[in-house]
Amino acid sequence: MPVRLQPPQADHLHPVAGIRIGIASAGVKTPGRKDLTVLLLAPGSQVAGVFTRNRFCAAPVVLTRQHLAYASSPAALVINTGNANAGTGDDGLMRAGAVCDALGGLLGCDRTAVLPFSTGVIMEPLPHEKIIHALPAALADAREDNWLAAAQAIMTTDIVAKAASRRLAVDGATIHVTGMAKGSGMIHPNMATMLGYIATDAAIAPALLQRMVRDAADASFNCITVDGDTSTNDAFMLIATGRAAGARTIEHESDPAYTAVQSAIRELAIELAQAIVRDGEGATKFIRIDIESGRSVEECRRIGFAIAHSPLVKTAFFASDPNLGRILAAIGYAGVDDLDVSALQLWLGDVLVAEHGGRAASYREADGQRVMREDEITVRVALHRGDARATLWTCDFSYDYVKINAEYRS
Amino acid sequence: MPVRLQPPQADHLHPVAGIRIGIASAGVKTPGRKDLTVLLLAPGSQVAGVFTRNRFCAAPVVLTRQHLAYASSPAALVINTGNANAGTGDDGLMRAGAVCDALGGLLGCDRTAVLPFSTGVIMEPLPHEKIIHALPAALADAREDNWLAAAQAIMTTDIVAKAASRRLAVDGATIHVTGMAKGSGMIHPNMATMLGYIATDAAIAPALLQRMVRDAADASFNCITVDGDTSTNDAFMLIATGRAAGARTIEHESDPAYTAVQSAIRELAIELAQAIVRDGEGATKFIRIDIESGRSVEECRRIGFAIAHSPLVKTAFFASDPNLGRILAAIGYAGVDDLDVSALQLWLGDVLVAEHGGRAASYREADGQRVMREDEITVRVALHRGDARATLWTCDFSYDYVKINAEYRS
Repeated sequence: MPVRLQPPQADHLHPVAGIRIGIASAGVKTPGRKDLTVLLLAPGSQVAGVFTRNRFCAAPVVLTRQHLAYASSPAALVINTGNANAGTGDDGLMRAGAVCDALGGLLGCDRTAVLPFSTGVIMEPLPHEKIIHALPAALADAREDNWLAAAQAIMTTDIVAKAASRRLAVDGATIHVTGMAKGSGMIHPNMATMLGYIATDAAIAPALLQRMVRDAADASFNCITVDGDTSTNDAFMLIATGRAAGARTIEHESDPAYTAVQSAIRELAIELAQAIVRDGEGATKFIRIDIESGRSVEECRRIGFAIAHSPLVKTAFFASDPNLGRILAAIGYAGVDDLDVSALQLWLGDVLVAEHGGRAASYREADGQRVMREDEITVRVALHRGDARATLWTCDFSYDYVKINAEYRS
Repeated sequence: MPVRLQPPQADHLHPVAGIRIGIASAGVKTPGRKDLTVLLLAPGSQVAGVFTRNRFCAAPVVLTRQHLAYASSPAALVINTGNANAGTGDDGLMRAGAVCDALGGLLGCDRTAVLPFSTGVIMEPLPHEKIIHALPAALADAREDNWLAAAQAIMTTDIVAKAASRRLAVDGATIHVTGMAKGSGMIHPNMATMLGYIATDAAIAPALLQRMVRDAADASFNCITVDGDTSTNDAFMLIATGRAAGARTIEHESDPAYTAVQSAIRELAIELAQAIVRDGEGATKFIRIDIESGRSVEECRRIGFAIAHSPLVKTAFFASDPNLGRILAAIGYAGVDDLDVSALQLWLGDVLVAEHGGRAASYREADGQRVMREDEITVRVALHRGDARATLWTCDFSYDYVKINAEYRS
């Protein structure tokens, strides 16, 4: 079960002026399941995104990138679950394009004003005709207060829907920031089987929006891992409609309004990213990894991910077993060649575990055991060789991870 | 249960002239268990080794390296299971050194003529006094035909002992090559919680021996992975006693005798390495991964290990589910940035699965299913961009992997 993760409540999710959302059942994989989501954007809305770095990036990712290059002011996003349309070659591009054509036809806009997203099984042909058939029903359902239903409709192996919202006052205008995400396996930095959408009714210049989405991704979705697998379909999109009453366009980073809105977006992205880890496939514990006093952020992240990816470390957390040597071993093979292991210190929660290249003199197994029994655990490593730091989030590795992924297609 | 791995038979393991092996129970972790092995080498024996690259390398690894630098002709190797003496700082070095001192005292040689090895739990103090107390019993047990007992005594989570042997005629002399290994989790290239020892009664010049051990490791132990964790304690040692009747010293690589002996050593190393994968923690399938027509061996290995390490791929093999898109996804995130995924081909066994960036037109799910049901499966990827190739071996990822590693210490 997810680790301290409650479903979002509909009345806590602020509508974002300029965005209407419609849901429908296309029957992509499971008849009757709500599996199709359309986001309709008011004219002039700006969209920026970051995408998977997997070389086998899926057809919809290819098209969304192309379409964004034509115009940064799309009319709609269309998201299906049940099929990722990845590893599908030219045929997959044709099918994703047909969905864009059809939605563009219904909306009276060019296909390039439609951004497609897919998540689900890889290497199966997308049943695009089913999706096209369900588009009118999705449009008929479109309304501003549909965020919770959308967060539910984009789920795959997720147990709990993920959505969050903020409201803030900026220069007298009331700005809303609302987002949703899906993902629970194949989660890795750069990125995950992860779809994330954050929308705001603030008005933000396109160049700044691209910077904001990158910054928010680096602080959130690129700091989480469940199993180290990087999906073919990941996308994190940031939408700014500019429709908040009284909002003026934010043009420069030096604008205090930029900082306010950016902080809200980053916080929301972190909350959604953590929700993905809390709902990690089979997760029973939520683990925060702080690497500090490193020489560079890159080496801190490298050591952090070595710990976060180690199946031995993750199964020890699952067992609540303070087998902390496994963490030392992971630090040692992280690939930081000149690391002086005798200089570093390792804490589990508030308990100093290791220093001087071995177990700390003050360490007692009972103390480690006490921390390991908790369902939220912080691992902290001080490298004592610089000022850089990084924080990552991951979960443990349980029987259920194997069960979920051995049975996913059946 | 191990995948097609039979226990070695004692009468198939040739004694190696110049090596006697003694076993005893030190009670390092489990009272009564045979956990202490001593290899006694005839004077003039040459020893070379390759070791873990983990920065937290264990105290015995540090000492063995130091001792080998003093002299390449050690008198004895001493191996304990139950405790890895890793992550133990200066105290661990003292304890490993005390074992060397004690065995040196019993043998009448310097401590630097003793090479120590440990495997087992990390970050616990080595009970060196128990080991020292049991050394006389191990020496009393020493004999040439003790290889099988030694292969059993060095096991940790291994289910089946791993040993193999070859006899070959070289220039009229009969040469024996016999080896043993342990390891089944924390297995990764460069290297694994893996101890491997191969001995021959051939006479080999020291500089050549170092080359042979590196070559054999690169072709075998550095081509396997179970879970991607690199241990603190790995060592692969090659011993040449020169005691075969009529053997002359091999001095040059151009000597045909070099090729003959080297081939036998490499074959044996591959057999032992594959045995480790077949006995991988929780393994139900043995998977061979061939990456061919790559631009470099390095990129072939990178792609192969991305496949071999993916928990999603490994759980799909466990489920016998031809969810082959997961293999494509792993190829895509392997980090070969200029890879043209539309040019590559993927086979599962003899079945062409993917080409032109997607599923092959000829592919039928029933064919993939047929191959997936086998317990030995070959994955082949042709990159079509060069002449390089690499072969790796791995296993699937099952409930039992989690069970074994969640319960290991209790």
